[in-house]
Amino acid sequence: MIPALLDAGCRVVDLSADFRLGDVSTYEAWYQEHTAPELLGEAVYGLPELFREQIPSARLLANPGCYPTSVALALAPLLENKLIDSTTIIVDSKSGTSGAGRAAKVDTLYCEVNEGFKAYSLPRHRHTPEIEQTLGRLAGSDVTITFTPHLLPVNRGILSTCYATLSGRLSLEELHDIYLERYACEAFVRVLPKGMLPNISQVRGSNYCDIGLAVDDRTGRVIAIAAIDNLVKGAAGQAVQNMNLMLALPENTGLEIPPLFP
Amino acid sequence: MIPALLDAGCRVVDLSADFRLGDVSTYEAWYQEHTAPELLGEAVYGLPELFREQIPSARLLANPGCYPTSVALALAPLLENKLIDSTTIIVDSKSGTSGAGRAAKVDTLYCEVNEGFKAYSLPRHRHTPEIEQTLGRLAGSDVTITFTPHLLPVNRGILSTCYATLSGRLSLEELHDIYLERYACEAFVRVLPKGMLPNISQVRGSNYCDIGLAVDDRTGRVIAIAAIDNLVKGAAGQAVQNMNLMLALPENTGLEIPPLFP
Amino acid sequence: MIPALLDAGCRVVDLSADFRLGDVSTYEAWYQEHTAPELLGEAVYGLPELFREQIPSARLLANPGCYPTSVALALAPLLENKLIDSTTIIVDSKSGTSGAGRAAKVDTLYCEVNEGFKAYSLPRHRHTPEIEQTLGRLAGSDVTITFTPHLLPVNRGILSTCYATLSGRLSLEELHDIYLERYACEAFVRVLPKGMLPNISQVRGSNYCDIGLAVDDRTGRVIAIAAIDNLVKGAAGQAVQNMNLMLALPENTGLEIPPLFP
Amino acid sequence: MIPALLDAGCRVVDLSADFRLGDVSTYEAWYQEHTAPELLGEAVYGLPELFREQIPSARLLANPGCYPTSVALALAPLLENKLIDSTTIIVDSKSGTSGAGRAAKVDTLYCEVNEGFKAYSLPRHRHTPEIEQTLGRLAGSDVTITFTPHLLPVNRGILSTCYATLSGRLSLEELHDIYLERYACEAFVRVLPKGMLPNISQVRGSNYCDIGLAVDDRTGRVIAIAAIDNLVKGAAGQAVQNMNLMLALPENTGLEIPPLFP
Repeated sequence: MIPALLDAGCRVVDLSADFRLGDVSTYEAWYQEHTAPELLGEAVYGLPELFREQIPSARLLANPGCYPTSVALALAPLLENKLIDSTTIIVDSKSGTSGAGRAAKVDTLYCEVNEGFKAYSLPRHRHTPEIEQTLGRLAGSDVTITFTPHLLPVNRGILSTCYATLSGRLSLEELHDIYLERYACEAFVRVLPKGMLPNISQVRGSNYCDIGLAVDDRTGRVIAIAAIDNLVKGAAGQAVQNMNLMLALPENTGLEIPPLFP
Repeated sequence: MIPALLDAGCRVVDLSADFRLGDVSTYEAWYQEHTAPELLGEAVYGLPELFREQIPSARLLANPGCYPTSVALALAPLLENKLIDSTTIIVDSKSGTSGAGRAAKVDTLYCEVNEGFKAYSLPRHRHTPEIEQTLGRLAGSDVTITFTPHLLPVNRGILSTCYATLSGRLSLEELHDIYLERYACEAFVRVLPKGMLPNISQVRGSNYCDIGLAVDDRTGRVIAIAAIDNLVKGAAGQAVQNMNLMLALPENTGLEIPPLFP
Repeated sequence: MIPALLDAGCRVVDLSADFRLGDVSTYEAWYQEHTAPELLGEAVYGLPELFREQIPSARLLANPGCYPTSVALALAPLLENKLIDSTTIIVDSKSGTSGAGRAAKVDTLYCEVNEGFKAYSLPRHRHTPEIEQTLGRLAGSDVTITFTPHLLPVNRGILSTCYATLSGRLSLEELHDIYLERYACEAFVRVLPKGMLPNISQVRGSNYCDIGLAVDDRTGRVIAIAAIDNLVKGAAGQAVQNMNLMLALPENTGLEIPPLFP
Repeated sequence: MIPALLDAGCRVVDLSADFRLGDVSTYEAWYQEHTAPELLGEAVYGLPELFREQIPSARLLANPGCYPTSVALALAPLLENKLIDSTTIIVDSKSGTSGAGRAAKVDTLYCEVNEGFKAYSLPRHRHTPEIEQTLGRLAGSDVTITFTPHLLPVNRGILSTCYATLSGRLSLEELHDIYLERYACEAFVRVLPKGMLPNISQVRGSNYCDIGLAVDDRTGRVIAIAAIDNLVKGAAGQAVQNMNLMLALPENTGLEIPPLFP
């Protein structure tokens, strides 16, 4: 469908996974045969906080997945500054049930999900190569991670708890300053005060990504945690943000929605 | 209170953390001053599946914490058989809200917890040294871990997702067989069929610990996941199990309660 | 299927609605064509607390519906003693989502039900004639009611709030004594202390029916509220209770399950 | 505090119950001693859809309670047109837990409320006289009702199921037309299509009041159901709506927030 739209002169923001992976063989290994591989080179991966410069001129924009958005924003300052050993990254993510879509399936019936909690799609969830591609770009070299998604008994929200071993000795204070500086100009990333940790209930309905940090001195690991609303910053909100950039509108047009709590 | 009970000839199953740690300085570093350190040497750590032989003769039994129970049962076969690098252990745990007790606090009000999810007590939750002590006994050497607890919007249940790097190449099939054999005689540990992962809703109200496994060939890591009911196998149920052993009753007396689903 | 079972000499406890209504035309007006109307005369309606005497000899027992069980137990002492005007009965019921079954339907997906609440099937839910039949037997004359079911975002539980105008002036104390006496010998009906009102969380997983009362002096109405677990006293538990009576076993065999709270 | 604000020349929108009841003795019978009874005559009850004309000039505006707002909007067309017997009104309401406030109390802890459901404050909840005052104004004569509030395991939302006996024979179609016409010019009242019933999840976060209707021909009763978000149309949203009217701003200024679903 997308080739026809482009031929007709449209510009496209695609919410599917079809144009997120630059490498057709990776796509086909994790998904299915690709019917328009000739467009992969042109497609722009639309995570504005990390790759904003390519977005305004994009004709075909691949809107990132929900899990990959949360993980990339949580880990970007560490990888960009080479502060962690990228072979040690483990991502433990938890998603609300709206992430599973609205199709009628027994697995997502109320009584199956409510008062329950489980991991799923181990050890090969389809968002893994998308996360690795983004982290690899940030690191400047290939990155392989362990990624474990879980199903949360809530409607909305993703929380990704990301672990990595620090390359050197860094205090929480130093790390926190690096994050504050990295995201100082970003309207939709909120680096929480030192010692505070994000809660999905604080971003519900909004385009915010909240980030919190901890340093485990005993093991030399950093723990970076990001919370987003999977239906907003993880999907439609980010699509609007990308569209705004493509149309040279203010980036927050239509997105100044405060979180709904409780 | 416990010294007086022992002096009066009672045998004690203690649900508090006071006699779980063998080393008084570790206890005092993570908790508070200890008022009966002379009893620490005598206290038996009551995790029957791992340390059953000392329980029948115990006069003072320390009932394990909820998080430590789930983690120890998930990782025991790996450590006992020296299958993992014990410096790489990361534990990402999620607990239902009953784990926070019944005191009137704003943090555990319905509207604060419902539709929310967060990590807490980073990077030093008090259950960390208890977990490390047990894993160290199983490994035969000191173990230091990263432990991250999260608060789940459910009444009951703990799910611990445990990560470690395998020492050698091991298939899921081989690992699964090791777990099946290790727990073959245990009434309350259910190693799930290969490919199935535990859900807290399948152990609710019961004394079961369900364990599932995954192997991430791409990174050489194993993921061992355990689910328990924090109020049963994680507290009162295990206390009854220990009492049964102390009184030479059948170990499952009073504990044959099927899980309540949904 | 049931005629064949009876022919083969089996005794049957039927959980469907097929043999609950004594009148075939009522059944066919609210359900569908009846394929075994010749058995309607023989079928015994198995609500032990109200119609125990016919159950031991039953060959075909119709296990009551979940809503009807809660309503009949709430109102029986009022109707048996002719304390209310039976033309004024309004029943406002709320059921957990397991009452809707386990089929894959969009309406009962987690995200549709969670954080929601609605009435449904107005003004003609199929349990209406079953409720009216039972209340009519208790009153000794035809009873027509208004019945409004609602869908609760919980797994289990029904709470029925029943309104009726008192025939004369009666205090809460007098009414409460009548209920206490009526159910004094019943193992599974708990008349709560005066001033206390039932909560579905206090009967979860058990065969109990909890009943609470209020009298609105300003309007002359009584409010009788009953809570049951729709899957136990409202279905399988009551079926076991009936089977016990049919087999001359103690009525509570297999049913001494305490409620699971929280 | 309010007399001082008025003396200082402020205009006040009061969210408390202190100036909602016109009669000081009624207030004192249901609440406490009133410290500024001299202001009761001046206070305007701010339910715009019913009493809009007095609001623009109000100096002291009493913002309605959450339950009373839902009930008044559900029943107004029936009472204004004298279509029901006002002695037969029964209101069965259900409120989300945010209605209980944010104080730390055991009763509203997560584990107490989750998976539970109960009625409370029977038979004399404090909102009863406020509801009766409004219904009486609409009816042109005193109205006494039975009002039963329940606690829902959701964060937000009130659903009020209102019962009354119709004065004459009226079809659902005729009633529905009356409601459509009555609220045709109201921005925040949505009369649902015939046969549809409101769900609190469809008004969450918005200032809407959704209304659905059913007629029970068998008993001659009408069932009018209203759903609002107790924190918006039931509190702060309605306060803004009233403020807009007091300041001659467009009535929907700041209130065009779409419901958040799921």
